[in-house]
Amino acid sequence: MHFESDNCSPIAPEIMFALEKVNNGYVTSYGEDETMVQCVRQVREIFENDSAEVFLVSTGTAANGLAISCVCSPWQTIYCHKESHIELEECGAPEFYTGGSKLTLLGGENGKINPFELENKLKFSSPAGVHSVQKGVLSITNSTEAGTVYTPIEIKELSKIAKKFNIPIHMDGTRFANAVLTNKTTPSELSWKAGVNILSLGGTKNGLLAAEAVIMFDPEKAWELELRRKRSGHLISKHRFLSAQMNAYFDNNLWLKLAQNSNYMAQKLSNGLTKIPGVFIDQPTQSNAVFASLPRFLHEKIRNSGAKYYYWPHDPEQTGPKGELIPARFVCSWSTTETEINQLLSSISNSSI
Amino acid sequence: MHFESDNCSPIAPEIMFALEKVNNGYVTSYGEDETMVQCVRQVREIFENDSAEVFLVSTGTAANGLAISCVCSPWQTIYCHKESHIELEECGAPEFYTGGSKLTLLGGENGKINPFELENKLKFSSPAGVHSVQKGVLSITNSTEAGTVYTPIEIKELSKIAKKFNIPIHMDGTRFANAVLTNKTTPSELSWKAGVNILSLGGTKNGLLAAEAVIMFDPEKAWELELRRKRSGHLISKHRFLSAQMNAYFDNNLWLKLAQNSNYMAQKLSNGLTKIPGVFIDQPTQSNAVFASLPRFLHEKIRNSGAKYYYWPHDPEQTGPKGELIPARFVCSWSTTETEINQLLSSISNSSI
Amino acid sequence: MHFESDNCSPIAPEIMFALEKVNNGYVTSYGEDETMVQCVRQVREIFENDSAEVFLVSTGTAANGLAISCVCSPWQTIYCHKESHIELEECGAPEFYTGGSKLTLLGGENGKINPFELENKLKFSSPAGVHSVQKGVLSITNSTEAGTVYTPIEIKELSKIAKKFNIPIHMDGTRFANAVLTNKTTPSELSWKAGVNILSLGGTKNGLLAAEAVIMFDPEKAWELELRRKRSGHLISKHRFLSAQMNAYFDNNLWLKLAQNSNYMAQKLSNGLTKIPGVFIDQPTQSNAVFASLPRFLHEKIRNSGAKYYYWPHDPEQTGPKGELIPARFVCSWSTTETEINQLLSSISNSSI
Amino acid sequence: MHFESDNCSPIAPEIMFALEKVNNGYVTSYGEDETMVQCVRQVREIFENDSAEVFLVSTGTAANGLAISCVCSPWQTIYCHKESHIELEECGAPEFYTGGSKLTLLGGENGKINPFELENKLKFSSPAGVHSVQKGVLSITNSTEAGTVYTPIEIKELSKIAKKFNIPIHMDGTRFANAVLTNKTTPSELSWKAGVNILSLGGTKNGLLAAEAVIMFDPEKAWELELRRKRSGHLISKHRFLSAQMNAYFDNNLWLKLAQNSNYMAQKLSNGLTKIPGVFIDQPTQSNAVFASLPRFLHEKIRNSGAKYYYWPHDPEQTGPKGELIPARFVCSWSTTETEINQLLSSISNSSI
Repeated sequence: MHFESDNCSPIAPEIMFALEKVNNGYVTSYGEDETMVQCVRQVREIFENDSAEVFLVSTGTAANGLAISCVCSPWQTIYCHKESHIELEECGAPEFYTGGSKLTLLGGENGKINPFELENKLKFSSPAGVHSVQKGVLSITNSTEAGTVYTPIEIKELSKIAKKFNIPIHMDGTRFANAVLTNKTTPSELSWKAGVNILSLGGTKNGLLAAEAVIMFDPEKAWELELRRKRSGHLISKHRFLSAQMNAYFDNNLWLKLAQNSNYMAQKLSNGLTKIPGVFIDQPTQSNAVFASLPRFLHEKIRNSGAKYYYWPHDPEQTGPKGELIPARFVCSWSTTETEINQLLSSISNSSI
Repeated sequence: MHFESDNCSPIAPEIMFALEKVNNGYVTSYGEDETMVQCVRQVREIFENDSAEVFLVSTGTAANGLAISCVCSPWQTIYCHKESHIELEECGAPEFYTGGSKLTLLGGENGKINPFELENKLKFSSPAGVHSVQKGVLSITNSTEAGTVYTPIEIKELSKIAKKFNIPIHMDGTRFANAVLTNKTTPSELSWKAGVNILSLGGTKNGLLAAEAVIMFDPEKAWELELRRKRSGHLISKHRFLSAQMNAYFDNNLWLKLAQNSNYMAQKLSNGLTKIPGVFIDQPTQSNAVFASLPRFLHEKIRNSGAKYYYWPHDPEQTGPKGELIPARFVCSWSTTETEINQLLSSISNSSI
Repeated sequence: MHFESDNCSPIAPEIMFALEKVNNGYVTSYGEDETMVQCVRQVREIFENDSAEVFLVSTGTAANGLAISCVCSPWQTIYCHKESHIELEECGAPEFYTGGSKLTLLGGENGKINPFELENKLKFSSPAGVHSVQKGVLSITNSTEAGTVYTPIEIKELSKIAKKFNIPIHMDGTRFANAVLTNKTTPSELSWKAGVNILSLGGTKNGLLAAEAVIMFDPEKAWELELRRKRSGHLISKHRFLSAQMNAYFDNNLWLKLAQNSNYMAQKLSNGLTKIPGVFIDQPTQSNAVFASLPRFLHEKIRNSGAKYYYWPHDPEQTGPKGELIPARFVCSWSTTETEINQLLSSISNSSI
Repeated sequence: MHFESDNCSPIAPEIMFALEKVNNGYVTSYGEDETMVQCVRQVREIFENDSAEVFLVSTGTAANGLAISCVCSPWQTIYCHKESHIELEECGAPEFYTGGSKLTLLGGENGKINPFELENKLKFSSPAGVHSVQKGVLSITNSTEAGTVYTPIEIKELSKIAKKFNIPIHMDGTRFANAVLTNKTTPSELSWKAGVNILSLGGTKNGLLAAEAVIMFDPEKAWELELRRKRSGHLISKHRFLSAQMNAYFDNNLWLKLAQNSNYMAQKLSNGLTKIPGVFIDQPTQSNAVFASLPRFLHEKIRNSGAKYYYWPHDPEQTGPKGELIPARFVCSWSTTETEINQLLSSISNSSI
């Protein structure tokens, strides 16, 4: 019973099969493999955008850093949620890749940026002309770090504000597939049609070995991104093994099927937890993670049953005496089973406060 | 009547005289002039610290950026007040000089960092090990951007917290002389004896042409700072003209005399404004700037009298209809005269709401 | 018949098997997997060094950039061969990772740095004190970019000079296994015992999917390297798949067996080419690449037979009229077969000038 | 008798007078002073270019670094002479300002880039596509570091090559005035009309206290340069004192008059040395520096007479036994007098080998 992170899950059998299949003889390296041509075609079809450019890298942090560095100058600032991955979990990768941009932190319920706060910040940013850092880019995460999703309408609302101040939008889509499903929408409606200029499309958390795509809907900076990727050591030499993962990921909508499982399991877990007295669901469960607060003794029961997960935000010191609520995060993955959900729930189902 | 900034003031006659005096024949360049030797001796005497190392540059932004970059790695964060100069007014210079450090913003009344907030941030910073940026340096400004001062005791309190988490302290002392006077203390008590490791000592705002000193109380990184200064183009070739300014600044306590005037004039202005009905002093006047809110019609009167100053924080759009209060900043300098203060006050003295 | 680059080869069956084997259930991510513990143990055994620290990344450019950035400050210079990979083929990755170091280029026969030139450069580097970039690190490649190898004695000679000027040594060991075999020596004799401080140990070119190791023989900067790896997006989340590759690579000396094949095939090809009139071997064949000059008509014959390889250095414009010699590079890999070598040779064996 | 560097000279009386004159009351800071408006007008007149943009900084290293960073991306290379100031004397400032560009070193007689070598390097640069650093900018120094000058025709020749490969031209004009005079041409003929896109125009070495101008003939990046200047701490707050220097410098052609003296004195010294048996002039004396080789015993005579100058390139260790030639550099400045030249010459005039 592993709910620490979708990063701890194995890779999907279709992906392993694709790796084996592509491991055949000599193939041109450094992104010039035939499978990559197919990936680009797939992305353009799936995103209904013939001019989109696609680049593969092996981590989400690299995808975000490279993507943002192409749309944000060193003397500009990145507007993002104060609990975003790029602020909290990437050891300053955006600053490293941009050459020293600032991150301007915004609040908002459920991990989603409050549009009024965004507009207000943009309105009063850079008040001192050359003395202030300049308006750079808006970065939003979908699904969010709080396990919720932005709807296309919500993105458009943010986008309208961003366009008003003439800044582009980056989307950290490490769990983009989950957001597409929850929204019952299309990839294009949730990205460029809603105003997104550049997307980090996740794969690793959703069943791949190590593959993420940067998708540029404005391809003018495609060559710059290629150079930045090489220069940072993110151009994989045996690139066919990245392409093969991404190719299989898109084939037959595998990416959505994998995300469907993690979404479904999270929903099931959330529904189960809701029924347990003393447990509070802290965020709407709209993706593959459940954020819930449980009494300390319930945590003990779960942990005794062998289930692994994190208190969230990593803060055991702030937790109080027995009986108090401790917030936690339970992440489901493409490989989470109903049995695991049931085991976790049954470990506490007959409990009471 | 100029109260926009002490940066708009001329340079003190003693400084101009020193420039003329040193403009005599050939002198070794790049910091190896004899006058610089005197400067170092002066700093060591004034700060009662024989191992202090001193480097001159021509702007406060350079002094801060260079100083901080010597004590903060690219993957670390700088803890500072959310209204600090390094955050708001330097176009990202700390990020540029450090190679991409983050700034972690802290609140606190009167431009001074709240110790509890500092301790809390330090306690819960870098929770995710290698995934988070690391604890770097505490940077405090004295006198603060709000025209107030930290006392030695207040600095020691912050220092105690910083040492507990093993981070050094940088002080932005662009108006350090003003703070020394207000505290009726010594430069050493207000700096290294209170726990400060590296100090940007201001000169330009206080009567110099363009000269600031970085004073390192831990001199191990002196050579690194020299290299960083050269590499960033801040090693002035005809360095004697920097040394001459700083030398004359310290001679006969000129630096304190100049600051005494600006402090005195600000106090006088503050006292005068206090007596005017409808005017509110927003910050304790402890340095050379007065932060006050005045009704709109009083602002009009002052402006009609020819006085110059800034609404503060630069926010005319947020100001309301006639009769409402509009906050403003009035900065006095070494060259502000009683006549100017009286003129400003008399322009509104016979007013009423 | 593919001789373009060992990067174009597939991955070894043992490696694919290891990937499958490790793809089993949930495993702690971000380098904290059990397989990585085994890798560290293997490296320490193989290199006879109990304090060595090991970090895995997915490209050689990342390994080099990260390794060098830990031992070279931004204001220092990297001494390297003018035809080194870090100078010519990494799009400025060393500059990116170090934050702007310079590369000081050295000559030397057969891709190996001339010790006299190194000593001379070091002696007259940084003549202008703070005005010059400072002495940083010596970086050597073994096997070299010219398909030759340094012997332990040659490395010690360079090391003696480097130590004299107090700079550390980095080794780009993208084809280190090949060099170990040719030298009939041990990994330790060819690295830290010869004076190497930090090693980029290649795997991808030698049969892995995408895995390289940075091995620090001076582990004081291990935490810095971890932070740099994360910050640059090179900490792979499903890290077990890197560990598994490296673990299988070292198991049963697979890494040496794979390199033995590529060395052997290159030797066979070189021997064959030597016998063909009009063909000149340009570099001693000591590793897995053959550098040879052939008359234009022989190139045509080979190409007509379907063999792929590069003119080297990429320079078709400089080649002259038919009959003139054109230099080329033929790279063998772990998967090159005798049949392929024979086919290539037979395509030109009955030719004459 | 000081011939170490024009950096050791005092500042011209007209400049000191201008500083005193502008030290009058309150003036808007940070480059928005009225005197700066005059400077811009002067530059546009003198350079016959109405769209030129001008920015002042206090060092030549800053001027070069900022200028180059606006026309060269981090992944590009700067083509420059191997003995250029930006390569040898700025502690890596170009690398710092660009964020890690490379410098590609070119040879050429008399400190001037050989056009064939430039064309050859450009032709064979970036052979490996994304794997190589890209073509960036050509940087030339005029007057050169060897005391010679490029003619407009020579610059046009280099420019033609640069344009062919689509890269802009930066000129390090730290001694531009000297080159204008020697060429008996106009500033425009020697800069933008010959193909120069951005110019660092020197002042400090030629009689100013600390003031250099970056002149952009393609003003699209003017705002970027402003931001870079502020961010690096090179926007002087009491900017009127920079403007005043530059304003007085251009007034009544003072800049050319000052350079005329240093040129004249160097010529006189060169002519005098030529007549002394055993002395060899190593470079054509076309600017304010004389590069000459003298027998060791003549150096001793000069030094005994009290004259100061540098062996060049800083290399006393390479000098041989008594009687051998030792190369040296003698720099004249705006303040060098005929008496000084005569004294130096007479100290050795009655010597023989």
